[in-house]
Amino acid sequence: MSNVSAQTMANAIRALSMDAVQKAKSGHPGMPMGMADIATALWSRHLRFNPTDPKWIGRDRFILSNGHGSMLQYALLHLTGYDLSMEDIKNFRQLHSKTPGHPEVDVTPGVETTTGPLGQGIANGVGMALAEKLLAKEFNREGFPVIDNRTYVFLGDGCLMEGISHEVCSLAGVWGLNKLIAIYDDNGISIDGDVRGWFRDDTRGRFEAYGWNVIGPVDGHDIDAMDRAIAEAKASTEKPTLIIAKTTIGKGSPHRAGTAKVHGEALGDEEIAATREALGWTHPPFEIPQEVYDAWDHRKEGARIEGEWQKLFAAYEAEYPELAAELKRRLAGDLPANWDSVVLDAIAAAAEAAETVATRKASQKALNALAPALPELLGGSADLTGSNLTNWSGSVSLNSGDFLARHISYGVREFGMSAILNGIALYGGFIPYGATFLTFSDYSRNALRMSALMKQRVINVFTHDSIGLGEDGPTHQSVEHVPSLRLIPDMDVWRPADTVETVVAWASAIERRDGPSSLIFTRQNVPFIDRDEVDADAIAMGGYVAADAPAGAGEADVILLATGSEVGLAMAARAELTARNIQVRVVSIPCTNRFDRQSREYRESVLTPGTPVLAMEASKSDLWWKYFSGKGDVLGVDRFGESAPAKILWDRFGFTVENVIAKVENLIK
Amino acid sequence: MSNVSAQTMANAIRALSMDAVQKAKSGHPGMPMGMADIATALWSRHLRFNPTDPKWIGRDRFILSNGHGSMLQYALLHLTGYDLSMEDIKNFRQLHSKTPGHPEVDVTPGVETTTGPLGQGIANGVGMALAEKLLAKEFNREGFPVIDNRTYVFLGDGCLMEGISHEVCSLAGVWGLNKLIAIYDDNGISIDGDVRGWFRDDTRGRFEAYGWNVIGPVDGHDIDAMDRAIAEAKASTEKPTLIIAKTTIGKGSPHRAGTAKVHGEALGDEEIAATREALGWTHPPFEIPQEVYDAWDHRKEGARIEGEWQKLFAAYEAEYPELAAELKRRLAGDLPANWDSVVLDAIAAAAEAAETVATRKASQKALNALAPALPELLGGSADLTGSNLTNWSGSVSLNSGDFLARHISYGVREFGMSAILNGIALYGGFIPYGATFLTFSDYSRNALRMSALMKQRVINVFTHDSIGLGEDGPTHQSVEHVPSLRLIPDMDVWRPADTVETVVAWASAIERRDGPSSLIFTRQNVPFIDRDEVDADAIAMGGYVAADAPAGAGEADVILLATGSEVGLAMAARAELTARNIQVRVVSIPCTNRFDRQSREYRESVLTPGTPVLAMEASKSDLWWKYFSGKGDVLGVDRFGESAPAKILWDRFGFTVENVIAKVENLIK
Repeated sequence: MSNVSAQTMANAIRALSMDAVQKAKSGHPGMPMGMADIATALWSRHLRFNPTDPKWIGRDRFILSNGHGSMLQYALLHLTGYDLSMEDIKNFRQLHSKTPGHPEVDVTPGVETTTGPLGQGIANGVGMALAEKLLAKEFNREGFPVIDNRTYVFLGDGCLMEGISHEVCSLAGVWGLNKLIAIYDDNGISIDGDVRGWFRDDTRGRFEAYGWNVIGPVDGHDIDAMDRAIAEAKASTEKPTLIIAKTTIGKGSPHRAGTAKVHGEALGDEEIAATREALGWTHPPFEIPQEVYDAWDHRKEGARIEGEWQKLFAAYEAEYPELAAELKRRLAGDLPANWDSVVLDAIAAAAEAAETVATRKASQKALNALAPALPELLGGSADLTGSNLTNWSGSVSLNSGDFLARHISYGVREFGMSAILNGIALYGGFIPYGATFLTFSDYSRNALRMSALMKQRVINVFTHDSIGLGEDGPTHQSVEHVPSLRLIPDMDVWRPADTVETVVAWASAIERRDGPSSLIFTRQNVPFIDRDEVDADAIAMGGYVAADAPAGAGEADVILLATGSEVGLAMAARAELTARNIQVRVVSIPCTNRFDRQSREYRESVLTPGTPVLAMEASKSDLWWKYFSGKGDVLGVDRFGESAPAKILWDRFGFTVENVIAKVENLIK
Repeated sequence: MSNVSAQTMANAIRALSMDAVQKAKSGHPGMPMGMADIATALWSRHLRFNPTDPKWIGRDRFILSNGHGSMLQYALLHLTGYDLSMEDIKNFRQLHSKTPGHPEVDVTPGVETTTGPLGQGIANGVGMALAEKLLAKEFNREGFPVIDNRTYVFLGDGCLMEGISHEVCSLAGVWGLNKLIAIYDDNGISIDGDVRGWFRDDTRGRFEAYGWNVIGPVDGHDIDAMDRAIAEAKASTEKPTLIIAKTTIGKGSPHRAGTAKVHGEALGDEEIAATREALGWTHPPFEIPQEVYDAWDHRKEGARIEGEWQKLFAAYEAEYPELAAELKRRLAGDLPANWDSVVLDAIAAAAEAAETVATRKASQKALNALAPALPELLGGSADLTGSNLTNWSGSVSLNSGDFLARHISYGVREFGMSAILNGIALYGGFIPYGATFLTFSDYSRNALRMSALMKQRVINVFTHDSIGLGEDGPTHQSVEHVPSLRLIPDMDVWRPADTVETVVAWASAIERRDGPSSLIFTRQNVPFIDRDEVDADAIAMGGYVAADAPAGAGEADVILLATGSEVGLAMAARAELTARNIQVRVVSIPCTNRFDRQSREYRESVLTPGTPVLAMEASKSDLWWKYFSGKGDVLGVDRFGESAPAKILWDRFGFTVENVIAKVENLIK
């Protein structure tokens, strides 16, 4: 054993944190200084990880839900031996550094998820712990716990105030995620000051109400006490654990500890000197004595425990070669070998059947065709399973209590669901999807953004789109949601027109490894599109010519550009316009985001420059104008919807063949 | 007393509900049938209201947070004597009826807020109860409780699962809203079935942890027991109360009661007949016996209690004429008589000072200028007061425990805050505003939408916009948020460029009586705009010519269209371009929504048709194309931001004079 005390180890975190924040003149010293002792107890005595192999599947997951305290994590990663140098620490919050303002997955080795938006880290943790439990159930065999890790989450008052913490911690209780251990940095301070002015929850009582095991309050500066609390938490066999750790924010700073000021402001040279003195930390900024490095270095121990696991896995592989191969495939995120043929068959079947159905029903049909070949597909709904049609024949529901389930009832918890999906995707082994009504994508919105920022393969199913939802009225009718989702960078938004486009949308979302997709489906029936040719590759480009001006009729006089339920209207209008000797090309753009990524050449082959365009979509009209190179007009919905049967609403909002003809005639006159 | 039993009165609700849903072939019979007995206890024995004066300020507020059960409320309003006829009931869920799918404020007399998006009704209720407490503290005098009402909220499992219920119920506990009484329809069923698969909270324990008074479980079908529970709740002097009422969803339906099927599906003729028989309700659909009407009729009692209150108010008015006049003004939503001059003075002072400051600081200066004249202005922040700068000198914080406060620390609860603001606005007497970082508008998004749908004067302050936020990185840098907020129908989004535009934005938001506004402010300093003329009316149009091509130089060769922090860049580029003999008009569009509402003539006077336009905004670029009648280009941010000092990011993302010049030269070449 090293003769460096645990307290000295903790002080190394404090020094690095205050110095890095000071150098950047930006950042949050309070939390890292307050949680340094807790982090020391966890990282030096409990957390299972290998700094030289940050992606080792057997590692415990560590999440900093209070992500503003990023220097805590960077200090830990640096000290324990990850590929994060002192230069990186010095570059805290600088352009393209490995030490950005908040922890970002795939930027820094050892960071499991991007945190900062409060409450979502604990939600990701619930997702990871669920994924672990599901994957263990599926792949572990007697004597071979190849999937076996804990998930640790640090969180603060802010996370506990956020509503999402309620949603996901309630679910963690229901699911009995005993390997989830959350440590609450109970420092009594948030940015506005002493939290008692706005936060007086009995947090123990609250978490016991969720069915959690609650430990504490523990003195968060007593490393041995924290050590014991964590050991006790690890012994929980049925319940997730919350450890309430009483701490002082900015601990060590003589004049700022315990104040809101220390939360997000550099200490300043004078107070840093005073803190060094108070801590007995005599080393200059960014210098760590070798003996402290030695005490923290986890590379040898990490290699040892990973080595043990590798031996276990080799034996598992010998005993269960197929299972091991499948687990490897799943963890690598590769699709099954027969995937392409499964998709082509599904498209051919949809084209053959040529059904008039709601696209939410088309989605369920697509799932029935694709999901049996794709065991990693893990569905769910925020208490709208029978409306979203996200279950498929043969999908076992987690409501049965069986953790081999493939469909999860998340309850009425849209935001929690979406952030849990992010956690599942980050864990690996699954392609998660979850559903609600499109309008309630609002509730999830920042988690959707985070899935895009983290480039995760998460699939959002949003049904009951537009005024076509009918009687439920304006509270439930999406108007701005499709364009608004399209604005999230790296989010692919699919609004398919029929059964064929729905299969392509699902397949594209599943095949997309570097980002999320949102699939928008109708409540109401839509006609099968009698397109010129069923060309799955063209559909997968995001936009294509569904029906061109009739052969021999020359160039189209007008392009009807439509998505989803309006493609059928465009086709109907085209028939009428053709009869009036107006030549029409119908362009379907089920995914503008993907279409926008195509070459200019391709885009101009679809939207011929100079041809007048009438865009049709039952949504806010603003985004279509970017596609007009010549004359253009939009048939959209630029106000809130109304409560009435859908058919009546379509008329009232002008989604009729007559109105399309009038608009076209006005456009090309 | 009538000899119609309370049970019969409840059955009238059941009959109307099942018949209306059946006629519409759409709607939710389960909740109204399950809560009919509770509603009878509340509405016939406790609720203070006057059906002939639905806006009487002394009324108790009643909110159906589980708004899908709208027929419950419509039945109650009809039976008690509101202006809601049997024809209206028969028109349930039809176009332009007074009985839309979910309750909508201002559509139906007696509906206090628009509900349906789960969890927000209880949040609105917390806002209303807070407004009542604040207004009572301010205006009541010894012996004159002119502001004195309770707020009752019905809610279901869905509302309790939603995260927002955590945020707002925690706050209700902190604020000690003892006149808030929530009744939980504990029927054990949500859409996916038996809730135990996904919802096992000990709800009593949870609410006790929030500091609530919890009563029950009570048999929700025992009208006398509910009567007693409500009486007990009314006696609470310090805590809000939750009554847990055990019910059977669809109570009365022999084959569907207690099932998920009865939640949202018409019963069908056969089951309706069986239900009639089981209830002993022999009357045909939409027929209520006169004696049942008589038992329910609340018009006389309503007139009596309002009459008592009118007497009280007349005496108050005699004793405190100025206070009474002020209360009337406040409740009418009229601004003070000197308002216009206060605004003009503030604009003149800003123009005179010509300061280079962050617009968040400009906002605080505007508040310091405007707020002292506007006692109804009730500010707050989701734990970012010192960053959002929403407090002003002299604003008392509610953290002091003083309910004469004018600034509220909502804690880290963005969604809850926004929905509470809606409740405060609906109650009246206040113009509420609340703040967070712009990116976290995502958390609030559906409440922002609801404020627009309800046309409420709510002001959202969103600071730290765009990549200008700097080091906190992509999780905190808004990219899509400004355009995305602009897409919400009836939301005015202001992104002012300097101190002058900031005052105009605040004044416009305050003066706007029929909808919400979002004010977007920078973290970083922005230069004062040396505009051709300080014309507040032009700025208030939403877009105007800030600086035209120099006199005598003829028409502009190019228009630089910018908002917020990019207007300063446009001005700097204009100087450089003018030196190169390119004539530039700079158009500032602080509020596109408002600009879009101006006449075509005005809009074309600002954006001259045919003149090339370079739009500049550090956001997703998609929405600008609609403003281009000729050549156009956008300098935007079409990907996520990065963690670095702001100055470095501006360069990296091309927001430099050099790049603007290059783009202009390319555009007009």
